[in-house]
Amino acid sequence: MKYLRLNRGRGLEWAQLEGDQVVPLTAAPWEPGANALPERLPLASVRLAAPAAPTKAVCVGRNYHEHAAEMGSDVPREPLLFLKPPSALLEPGGAIVYPPQSRHLSYEGELAVVIGRRCRDAAPDQALDYVFGYTCANDVTARDLQKSDGQWTRGKGFDTFLPVGPYLVTGLNWEGLRIQTRVSGETRQDGNTGDMVFPVPYLVSYISQVMTLEPGDLILTGTPPGVGSMNVEDVVEVEVEGIGTLQNSVRAK
Amino acid sequence: MKYLRLNRGRGLEWAQLEGDQVVPLTAAPWEPGANALPERLPLASVRLAAPAAPTKAVCVGRNYHEHAAEMGSDVPREPLLFLKPPSALLEPGGAIVYPPQSRHLSYEGELAVVIGRRCRDAAPDQALDYVFGYTCANDVTARDLQKSDGQWTRGKGFDTFLPVGPYLVTGLNWEGLRIQTRVSGETRQDGNTGDMVFPVPYLVSYISQVMTLEPGDLILTGTPPGVGSMNVEDVVEVEVEGIGTLQNSVRAK
Repeated sequence: MKYLRLNRGRGLEWAQLEGDQVVPLTAAPWEPGANALPERLPLASVRLAAPAAPTKAVCVGRNYHEHAAEMGSDVPREPLLFLKPPSALLEPGGAIVYPPQSRHLSYEGELAVVIGRRCRDAAPDQALDYVFGYTCANDVTARDLQKSDGQWTRGKGFDTFLPVGPYLVTGLNWEGLRIQTRVSGETRQDGNTGDMVFPVPYLVSYISQVMTLEPGDLILTGTPPGVGSMNVEDVVEVEVEGIGTLQNSVRAK
Repeated sequence: MKYLRLNRGRGLEWAQLEGDQVVPLTAAPWEPGANALPERLPLASVRLAAPAAPTKAVCVGRNYHEHAAEMGSDVPREPLLFLKPPSALLEPGGAIVYPPQSRHLSYEGELAVVIGRRCRDAAPDQALDYVFGYTCANDVTARDLQKSDGQWTRGKGFDTFLPVGPYLVTGLNWEGLRIQTRVSGETRQDGNTGDMVFPVPYLVSYISQVMTLEPGDLILTGTPPGVGSMNVEDVVEVEVEGIGTLQNSVRAK
């Protein structure tokens, strides 16, 4: 099933997609009491919001061998964690704002996990029970600030630096999905989620032994090789097989 | 005025302190509609919760000269930001859990700012308008993991690694407050908030130019010199002049 979040100007609402019709729900889709409302909206008529409700977005650095190599780094021995703040969330179609503090803005297309149940100290072989579904994300990065600060929080934490969507998809096998990033129509990343260093169940388990994951939380699973710059007026697309295409433009502040 | 958050087993409630009496409020104290309820509870009878409601906790590294020196580092040219997740919050009196992944747990006593109004791109001379009040915090750190990971997220992000409280205090001048940390009765840190490298208005302004701050968000302003280890069964106290003492024990997982 594909879920989405929409914005009709009265707070964000969850919905499910049936063909090209949007069916609003009474609650987040992972909640036991979530029911379909007797309404149908054409998909083309709704404004999408990011299909997650994160109290935190936990990201994993250097989780593809070739991306670690292109950054001049080794693959870490353990998952390398960092956080993006919820204030960075951006909806599908929204504009990434190029911050005046940076001269080098980069995309990083990623498969994102959305948690469906509170998760603490999960074993790897049970970790997928806590995953509700998957979506696309762009770990937008001010590469110059990431390097000069050492800590990645500022370089990856600006408002609009966390585009997520368009759909939250259940019943998907995370392994072996093609993941592509295009900048103004040109393919820059073309990888496969099967090439992750630490697979999704391992990541969920590892993170849950550090911090309790809440329903709606996001895990960004790392980016494949091919990162590079994007500029004002570019349109950046992250496409993951079975999910859809997350499209965002870049604008000056 | 001193505010607190309490837990009567029916969700967290805000309250104000009148002498040794607790007066519950209808909403968070920064909300225009927050009113006192016709109830009085003895302070000694209530279980406190962390007096904040953070969508994010933004922390500042190396913000006291002598602490930077004791860590073998220079003071950064700009505030060095990192995040702790809301899942790390711990109430006054709660137990810090020593994670089995670490062999070196450290306290870092800090003055914490609680935001009262949404804040984006604030100028330094207007930044204090967005501050609701101040409280004490302990930036608990697994020092070995902080160093081995490079990124500080895991070492500072475990559940219980963000004790905050006991009170949220308004009308306080942030500058020139004595700040002390004691471990099992022994004073380990004895500093003054006037020694910050980047003062509170500068920090609020700087952060707000990166990420929008929301009401209830926390800013931890850095720790004075004297950091060191704490162990299972220790009791750690962070006391800030004019606020009170935040006391937590340490226990094994």
